[in-house]
Amino acid sequence: MNPYRPPLDDIRFLLQTFGYSEQVQTLPLFGDFDLDTAMDLVQGYSDYCVDVLLPLNSKGDVQGVRYLPETHQVLAPDGFKAAWDGWCENGFVGMAHAAEHGGVGAPFSLSILASEILIACNKSFSMCPGLTGGLVEALEAHASDELKERYLHKLVSGEWAGTMCLTEPHCGTDLGLLTTRAEPEGDHYRLSGTKIWITFGEHDLTENIIHLVLARLPDAPPGSRGISTFVVPKFLPDGSRNGIFCGGTDHKMGIHASPTCVMNLEGAVGWLVGEENRGMVSMFTMMNSARLNVGIEGVALGEAAYQAARAFAQDRRQSRALNPDRQEPGQAADTILVHPDVRRMLLHIRSTTEGLRGLVAWISVLYDVMHHSPDEATRNSATDLVALLTPIIKSYGSERGFQNISEAMQVMGGAGFTRDWPVEQFLRDERIAMIYEGTNHIQALDLVGRKLPMGGGRLVKAFAGEIQALLSRRAEDPRMAEYVQGLGAEAKRLSETTRALSQAATQDAEVVGAVANAYLSQFALVTLAYVWARQVEAVIDLPEDDARRRSKLQLARFFYAWVLPEAGLQARRVAAGKDFITEIDTGLL
Amino acid sequence: MNPYRPPLDDIRFLLQTFGYSEQVQTLPLFGDFDLDTAMDLVQGYSDYCVDVLLPLNSKGDVQGVRYLPETHQVLAPDGFKAAWDGWCENGFVGMAHAAEHGGVGAPFSLSILASEILIACNKSFSMCPGLTGGLVEALEAHASDELKERYLHKLVSGEWAGTMCLTEPHCGTDLGLLTTRAEPEGDHYRLSGTKIWITFGEHDLTENIIHLVLARLPDAPPGSRGISTFVVPKFLPDGSRNGIFCGGTDHKMGIHASPTCVMNLEGAVGWLVGEENRGMVSMFTMMNSARLNVGIEGVALGEAAYQAARAFAQDRRQSRALNPDRQEPGQAADTILVHPDVRRMLLHIRSTTEGLRGLVAWISVLYDVMHHSPDEATRNSATDLVALLTPIIKSYGSERGFQNISEAMQVMGGAGFTRDWPVEQFLRDERIAMIYEGTNHIQALDLVGRKLPMGGGRLVKAFAGEIQALLSRRAEDPRMAEYVQGLGAEAKRLSETTRALSQAATQDAEVVGAVANAYLSQFALVTLAYVWARQVEAVIDLPEDDARRRSKLQLARFFYAWVLPEAGLQARRVAAGKDFITEIDTGLL
Repeated sequence: MNPYRPPLDDIRFLLQTFGYSEQVQTLPLFGDFDLDTAMDLVQGYSDYCVDVLLPLNSKGDVQGVRYLPETHQVLAPDGFKAAWDGWCENGFVGMAHAAEHGGVGAPFSLSILASEILIACNKSFSMCPGLTGGLVEALEAHASDELKERYLHKLVSGEWAGTMCLTEPHCGTDLGLLTTRAEPEGDHYRLSGTKIWITFGEHDLTENIIHLVLARLPDAPPGSRGISTFVVPKFLPDGSRNGIFCGGTDHKMGIHASPTCVMNLEGAVGWLVGEENRGMVSMFTMMNSARLNVGIEGVALGEAAYQAARAFAQDRRQSRALNPDRQEPGQAADTILVHPDVRRMLLHIRSTTEGLRGLVAWISVLYDVMHHSPDEATRNSATDLVALLTPIIKSYGSERGFQNISEAMQVMGGAGFTRDWPVEQFLRDERIAMIYEGTNHIQALDLVGRKLPMGGGRLVKAFAGEIQALLSRRAEDPRMAEYVQGLGAEAKRLSETTRALSQAATQDAEVVGAVANAYLSQFALVTLAYVWARQVEAVIDLPEDDARRRSKLQLARFFYAWVLPEAGLQARRVAAGKDFITEIDTGLL
Repeated sequence: MNPYRPPLDDIRFLLQTFGYSEQVQTLPLFGDFDLDTAMDLVQGYSDYCVDVLLPLNSKGDVQGVRYLPETHQVLAPDGFKAAWDGWCENGFVGMAHAAEHGGVGAPFSLSILASEILIACNKSFSMCPGLTGGLVEALEAHASDELKERYLHKLVSGEWAGTMCLTEPHCGTDLGLLTTRAEPEGDHYRLSGTKIWITFGEHDLTENIIHLVLARLPDAPPGSRGISTFVVPKFLPDGSRNGIFCGGTDHKMGIHASPTCVMNLEGAVGWLVGEENRGMVSMFTMMNSARLNVGIEGVALGEAAYQAARAFAQDRRQSRALNPDRQEPGQAADTILVHPDVRRMLLHIRSTTEGLRGLVAWISVLYDVMHHSPDEATRNSATDLVALLTPIIKSYGSERGFQNISEAMQVMGGAGFTRDWPVEQFLRDERIAMIYEGTNHIQALDLVGRKLPMGGGRLVKAFAGEIQALLSRRAEDPRMAEYVQGLGAEAKRLSETTRALSQAATQDAEVVGAVANAYLSQFALVTLAYVWARQVEAVIDLPEDDARRRSKLQLARFFYAWVLPEAGLQARRVAAGKDFITEIDTGLL
């Protein structure tokens, strides 16, 4: 039983709160997309997800994908091909892509927020449009006009699908080790090597599959500065089969309907994307959008798990309320919703999920500004904040999403552990999010090692500036005193932690590795505290009995009282340094 | 690939540390079981687990149990029946049961600590001997001589197996709601009703299955004071089939080889165990031993996951060490074991696992003392500590076990998410431990609502006394200064939290519900800090280069620096009270 209903009202509220009308709709490209039009678009997308994709979710999990070794084919579960065709007919693949390539040309903010609904309804399915969209972004940014001409229309329409081929058996996190070779041959290259963990590397949803492949030219320097990016289609422009074959699919704990493929390149023909040896740049264009998406997976499945747990709790009667005033007369037991610990778990899930969704909304708006603002300075500052917040949403979103689903299962007891409810699938499907597209530790290293020092601390100053602006404009508002006080104190502590860590990092790189995760957690908690303060600001002038005002204030209050204090623990862990971690005999581990 | 090796050395060390030789071997019953003899017994048990049960673990997960609706039969996965027969032939079912019933008569402490190995090798399988042993305990304590005579020998030999039938569709946590009826008929009763979540309720491992069933007599008072316990065999003494049938098995996220059954009682013949309407007493005899076992599940699978992650990390090369001194010459990348975050994760898993195993050892020794000490006061104080520590090991063991397995998966990246390694199965198998045998919140309520006030705080005073004794005897030992200081500070904070909570609880029961979980976490962290201090004491006089001394000191140091500080966060949550949890509109959830 899956009671999921898309959180369209909250999405609309968050678009408003994070300045959609002021910052996105006012962009030259998006004048037609006022909030009502935008939400109509999201509504149509949402309806398709609920009507078509949600009913396939559990079926796809149980059936899984099938690999046929003789033909190297992968068959999607029953119903997925028809669902994909409908997805394409509705134009959802190209919702946020340029009209010149056949897309709808809607703001990215809409497709980003809407993707939560897609993932909640069917995470396995969502990975195919997700990767295809990422490939479109990479080709738009880096490919030659000829390659754009050849591939973009078919990808934007969904006639063809995309993949990202990075990992090899001996290298995942450390791409500098990769050995797939690309030998020049006329206008193209011949690629040979083995790629693993390739999501939707092979399937029967589309006629053709277009792979973005990282490989090394014969004369390339070693390490990550010798990596180039190639586009390698399954079928060549003349219709012949290219030498890239699926060698098998992995048996995984979750996302059973998403094929995870070994891909063998056997002299496959590919074309260079971007400059030689600068492949990490195009890869990161695709990767950053994928990282945002992974963060959204935690929001999506956390929300879906919350709704299942709430439905269960509303129905399940067990024990009397501890407070006699809350006991329902004439019943032998009350719904478990009255029990404080059940409420605590539900509030924990919901306050972090709506906090994370707010963060997604903030990033989404910045994403459109970064790409389309006519003002360079505005674009640059949006780019900075997106760069800073991407590891936060990827890492904290995936971690919290997994924990939230587990907590939803706890609300449901044994029922949640069975296939009668979707929560056990969510837990299995979500766990990989902490690992793929750069493990959460890689995100933390990106935050501490790259984003903090960038531009002499410019990014983190811009972030602190946003918080200060809110604290200043609400300093005298008694209705927001507890948020101003809590956010102010934690922002101050974070800036002290940042200063101390930045200093320690210049002296000893190992410190960064030891404490980066704790620092990211602290940073994420302060970020969500800011996002919650923004949501409080957005409802504070509504009438006191307004349901949204009451709901948002209650969730914000819970977040500040119960969730945010963890920032102090993480700060303490950062301050504790590295010795008790690094100075340990490896042989004793 | 499952590289598991039983931690026999650590088990031996912990038996020594927690006083096996002084407190168990000196008991009149156990004079023959010196530590060497004891460990020989555990070694034989361990060998069988590794040789026979471990190879069946993944197979059982993939194949699962099969239910045959026509005959109400449940078939175990291939190989399980032969494995069970071997288990029985070796006398492992009755290892700790009385010789007069055909058991080996070894101390419980040995079978409790050894059960970690059984669970690590095959958690699904382990549930059958676990429940059978629990039933033996309940019958020994509460059944009439006639019932003992009829059932104990066959259960202790493993010829027959046991179950515990508590839950019904409308009642799990709140057993007071149960409606299964028992009508008197001659020397026996006729039971009718439906039980769910019955582990090994039906299977083909044994000839007969003996159910301990909670039911209500016709004139029973309502609620949990009207529950009686009955023994209901699948086959009656005359060989005829009794009216208790399996109506189906659940499809679960994990423990696929352990059948979870719906059991329909259709006028089944049963015999009363213990007194009428006092069924909760015999149920709790079985339940308390089951709760300890559930805590051990977290130790077992956490250890097995740790070993898999370590094996992976020792082999996997990715990136150079951040510290140039740790870079292995002539390699393109170092093993990931050198990376601080990988070490941090491994240390986190191992320090909590060895802390929890120490807690199990402590409880195990107390268990034998509680049952067999000739001195009543000694028995009583052991009983007190076991009662206090049981919710801690069940709750924190299951929570930490689950998180530890997830962290082991994080060490392994994508590989850990696949069926190529056992960790994804461990994660699925372990998750239920937070739910069954009383959810972790029920444990927390038991701790705060029952164990704290018991005897005017006698239990918690005894616990604090153990800590104080250690602090006093090591007050002047400079080698233990950091542990004495850390434990002293956290014990003091815990006693303040306890005092404030006990006071608040007398005024408002809802506060208990709101903060009990946070309190249990704080209590558990202080408990493990004490257990670690005991382990440090036990190695501190060894030569400085002794491997165990170095290993234990390093783990203890990590625990104190990185894990224990969470106690402060949990104390803050307890102090925050209930308002932001309970005073929220239910309709807005």
